[in-house]
Amino acid sequence: MISKNQIKFIKSLSIKKYRDQHQHAILEGYRLIEESIKSNVKIKYIYCTEKNYHKISNNKLFNSVEVFCITDSESKSLSETKNSQGIIALIDIKKYFNNQLNDINNENIIILDGVSDPGNLGTIFRNCIWFGIKSIILTNNSIDPFNLKCIRSGMGAHFYFNNIIQENNSQIIIEHLINNNYNIIVADLNGDDVSDISLNNNWALIFGSEAHGISKNFNKFQKITIEKVGDVESLNVSVASGILLNELNRKIN
Amino acid sequence: MISKNQIKFIKSLSIKKYRDQHQHAILEGYRLIEESIKSNVKIKYIYCTEKNYHKISNNKLFNSVEVFCITDSESKSLSETKNSQGIIALIDIKKYFNNQLNDINNENIIILDGVSDPGNLGTIFRNCIWFGIKSIILTNNSIDPFNLKCIRSGMGAHFYFNNIIQENNSQIIIEHLINNNYNIIVADLNGDDVSDISLNNNWALIFGSEAHGISKNFNKFQKITIEKVGDVESLNVSVASGILLNELNRKIN
Repeated sequence: MISKNQIKFIKSLSIKKYRDQHQHAILEGYRLIEESIKSNVKIKYIYCTEKNYHKISNNKLFNSVEVFCITDSESKSLSETKNSQGIIALIDIKKYFNNQLNDINNENIIILDGVSDPGNLGTIFRNCIWFGIKSIILTNNSIDPFNLKCIRSGMGAHFYFNNIIQENNSQIIIEHLINNNYNIIVADLNGDDVSDISLNNNWALIFGSEAHGISKNFNKFQKITIEKVGDVESLNVSVASGILLNELNRKIN
Repeated sequence: MISKNQIKFIKSLSIKKYRDQHQHAILEGYRLIEESIKSNVKIKYIYCTEKNYHKISNNKLFNSVEVFCITDSESKSLSETKNSQGIIALIDIKKYFNNQLNDINNENIIILDGVSDPGNLGTIFRNCIWFGIKSIILTNNSIDPFNLKCIRSGMGAHFYFNNIIQENNSQIIIEHLINNNYNIIVADLNGDDVSDISLNNNWALIFGSEAHGISKNFNKFQKITIEKVGDVESLNVSVASGILLNELNRKIN
């Protein structure tokens, strides 16, 4: 059983304003929740239907989580997807509101300068964690990472990050990077072939928005690109980030 | 002005059955249509609002296309997206129903074995064309490439392909590849590091479905993977395809 107020509260978390206000977000679906538990997400409660209750009872990962059973119709009213999977987790995201630029030094990082598609953002998060990048800066009103679609495409990657920082002032970011001896590089269609460049020190790799590219302040740094053979104008930004992270990873090894 | 029958016909093309029957599909949005014209898509008609009509009148690419003006409300009723952009192209996709396996030889190819997300499929198409791959085989009931979402994420890549072949019998595909001396390789989390493998002859690279991986018949071939540094379980299939295509492209150069 779940009260009307609880339903109202959970549903409100599909809106950024309320996520920011309450510092909570929602995970939906068994596999996403399972992956997220592996990454030490802070789950407050799980709400699930009877069918899912049996499933999670047999999964040790869910042992220490407080679970509320809900009816199919309650589950439908909570769900943001067309086909509710009957399992939702309420998570604490307070940690990410305390992340500060000063926490970032001595590690390679990614900066997303206005990435607006939630699917792209989540996929880039997944790429980052695959390649061991644990700090990310979002600028220029990038989409909120705790947007439901973004969490879904992140497949649990969100909760492996040490720092997810939202900072719209690019000058402050650049100053911090320069003070910490970063190689600042920008993904751009007209750049040096990534396989030709050499990097000393840590690097900060910047991706612009899908529609408008990189903003002015970042535009002066070294640009890198991926060798093109064929005809399309560009790659999807999440694919480009995967390819460049793989290339940069190979340089270290 | 557009007749009710025309509206009905165009709207029917959001369903695969009718796309197959009429061998037509729909492109929606100015940028997508512009990119597709560059790739020599066969446009039958464009339907657009007055505002868009002025825009395309000033764009030489649209010179040889037959255009019908429609009202804002007609445009809304035609559109499959929430925010109609007021421009739709009816395209001829007959060509793709004539593509045959025998047309593929002496070129590197991608095989998608049950990729089900339209966004992933379109993004993989974009990757293929970027890296010069012009033939693709879809098996195991992969999502229809002319699905509207798939076309949207392909950003015009679809129309650069020489061959888009749908063939559900994997034995027939394997026989054709072996007869044509292909290196058959499978993208898999437990494979050889792609940077360590060497390839003679042309290659056919196979990706499995997001949820179920590779089907049994393809499972016996050499598996390749992308070096992982961090914690997430997997990469998105469109990202993995981009990284592997970039790696294989580097081997040739």
